[in-house]
Amino acid sequence: MDCIFCKIVKGEIPSRKLFENDRVLAFYDIQPAAPAHALVIPKKHIASMNEAEEEDRELLGELLLTAKKVAGELGIAESGYRLINNVGPDSGQIVFHIHIHVLGGEKLGGLNVKS
Amino acid sequence: MDCIFCKIVKGEIPSRKLFENDRVLAFYDIQPAAPAHALVIPKKHIASMNEAEEEDRELLGELLLTAKKVAGELGIAESGYRLINNVGPDSGQIVFHIHIHVLGGEKLGGLNVKS
Repeated sequence: MDCIFCKIVKGEIPSRKLFENDRVLAFYDIQPAAPAHALVIPKKHIASMNEAEEEDRELLGELLLTAKKVAGELGIAESGYRLINNVGPDSGQIVFHIHIHVLGGEKLGGLNVKS
Repeated sequence: MDCIFCKIVKGEIPSRKLFENDRVLAFYDIQPAAPAHALVIPKKHIASMNEAEEEDRELLGELLLTAKKVAGELGIAESGYRLINNVGPDSGQIVFHIHIHVLGGEKLGGLNVKS
């Protein structure tokens, strides 16, 4: 496996952790797109939502509940935040290990604004 | 309850449905922000991810698996898509009933681009 997020899970690549348990990990994005920007990933390697299966249902739910928890940690629960999961070419997905972006800390841009 | 999405669930307001079961509903967004734009909602009223609780874990996972399924229905599974959940003021959340946007059908904009 040459997956950068699997290496972060194993501690082979450092990360600034926000939350961790046996199943999920949350850490700061190293290229923040907003004042607050974290990633929530499953420890299990799943390349993208396209590869998620029915058996992953609880794990996927835990990703969203962890994102909520992380928003609280980041102090953006009340001001608001956006959860984003990119899948495949048109989305700009770069790392092929499911990750949910948690973005906030400012008024965010529109749903699909081109730069 | 004066929730527009609860009214869609009850059939009091029409929608172009893509998928439905006892727990979730998917339908086309009436103000599309991309060539393909659907919404996936739980039938249970949950105002936002901030109000989601541990007991909603499986339901939240089903929302994501339904979003995957809907992307297949829309023909964007391979070209790629973005799942977005807005929470609170900074995100621009308008309807306070959890909804996951499924966006695709073109190269999407960046994560947080201002218009």
